[in-house]
Amino acid sequence: MRNNRGQLIVISGPSGVGKGTVLKEFLKDRENVALSVSATTRQPRPGEENGVHYYFLTKEQFLQKVGEGNMLEYAQYNENYYGTPKDKVEEALDAGRDIVLEIEVQGACSVKKQCPEALLVFVMPPSWKELENRLMGRETEDIETVKNRLRIAHTELKEAAHYDYILVNDTVEHAVEQLKHIIEAGRCRTQTMIDFIKEVDQNA
Amino acid sequence: MRNNRGQLIVISGPSGVGKGTVLKEFLKDRENVALSVSATTRQPRPGEENGVHYYFLTKEQFLQKVGEGNMLEYAQYNENYYGTPKDKVEEALDAGRDIVLEIEVQGACSVKKQCPEALLVFVMPPSWKELENRLMGRETEDIETVKNRLRIAHTELKEAAHYDYILVNDTVEHAVEQLKHIIEAGRCRTQTMIDFIKEVDQNA
Repeated sequence: MRNNRGQLIVISGPSGVGKGTVLKEFLKDRENVALSVSATTRQPRPGEENGVHYYFLTKEQFLQKVGEGNMLEYAQYNENYYGTPKDKVEEALDAGRDIVLEIEVQGACSVKKQCPEALLVFVMPPSWKELENRLMGRETEDIETVKNRLRIAHTELKEAAHYDYILVNDTVEHAVEQLKHIIEAGRCRTQTMIDFIKEVDQNA
Repeated sequence: MRNNRGQLIVISGPSGVGKGTVLKEFLKDRENVALSVSATTRQPRPGEENGVHYYFLTKEQFLQKVGEGNMLEYAQYNENYYGTPKDKVEEALDAGRDIVLEIEVQGACSVKKQCPEALLVFVMPPSWKELENRLMGRETEDIETVKNRLRIAHTELKEAAHYDYILVNDTVEHAVEQLKHIIEAGRCRTQTMIDFIKEVDQNA
C-alpha cells in the first residue's frame, strides 16, 4: 500500500520575510493541512482555548514531556517554555494530515534530527535590500529593533543551506504556488516511498 | 541573481510502465522543456534529420567524444552506440531550458555522477500486477518477451531507491500532475539555490 501518512513541514525564515502571510494564504481552503498547536507554560489569555491556540501546561508537565522525549523542539522566552508536542504531531500525521510547524532555525534542526523525513523549507526575501525595506516599512518598530532583527536574520541565513528547499517570497502568490509544488513533490520523495518500493518488489 | 539555469531531468522506469506516454503528455504545450537529442552511430533512417531525431556520428567520432568526457552516458545495442552529448545538454541548460533524458538505470547513475544536481525520477507502476497486465496487454509481444521484460523490470526496481523521486503512474493525468510538481519544486531545492543564498548573504 502507498504511504498515506501526512507530511511534517517545517517553515523557517527571518522576521519580516512574510512567512506568516504566505502560510495564511496557503492554508486557506486546505482542509488536509494544519498548523501545529504548540504547548506553552504561559498563562492563557482571554479567549484562548486549550488544544486550539495552545496546549497549556504547567512547567512541571512541560519539562516532564521534554524528559520523555515528547517535544520535537522547544525553547524558552521570557521565563516561559514553548514547544511542539511530538504525540499530537504523530497522531495528525498518522491520520493522513500534513502538519506545518513555523519555527526557528534551532528548532528546525532539532525536528530534522528526530524526523529525518520532515520537509524543511526556508523562506527567503528576493534580496537583502528587500528584507530591509520590509522591516523598515513596519512603522511600529524603532530603528534599533529593526537593526536587531536584521542581525538575527543574517545569523539565520547561515542556516538556510541545511534546509531541503528555499522558498523565495517575491510575491505572496508565487510563493504560495511554489510551496504547493514543494509539498506535493514531497510525497514523491524516494525516502517517503521506500515501503511502497519494497512492497512492489516483494510481489515481483 | 537567482539561478535561471534549466534543470536536467532524468526519467527511468521499467518497460511497460508508460513513461513515454506520461512524458509525451507532459511535454505538450511546454515550450521551455525539451527531450534531449541522443547521439548514435547507427545509420539514419529515411526522414531522420541530424540534430532533430539524433546526432549521427561515426564510430570514431562517438568514441572520441566518450574519451573527451563529452558523453553524459552511453550504451551499445546491436553493434551501435547511443549516448547523450554533454555539450548539447549544457548549452540548453545554460539557455534556461529544462532537458529531459529518458534513459536506463545504468545511464542515470552515470549522469548523476557527472551532474549531481540532476533530478532523477523513477516511474513505477501502482503494483507489480498492474505492470504484468500492461505488458500482457501489448498483443504484439509473445509470452517469452513479456517474461524477459518482467525479469529486467525486477532488476531495475532494485535501483529505484537511488533516484530522487518516485513517480507512480496510476493514471497518466495524475502522473503528469505529479511530474509538474516535482520539476517546479526542483527549482527550489537548496542545492540549486546555493549561489542565491550566498549573494543575499554577501549583501547583508
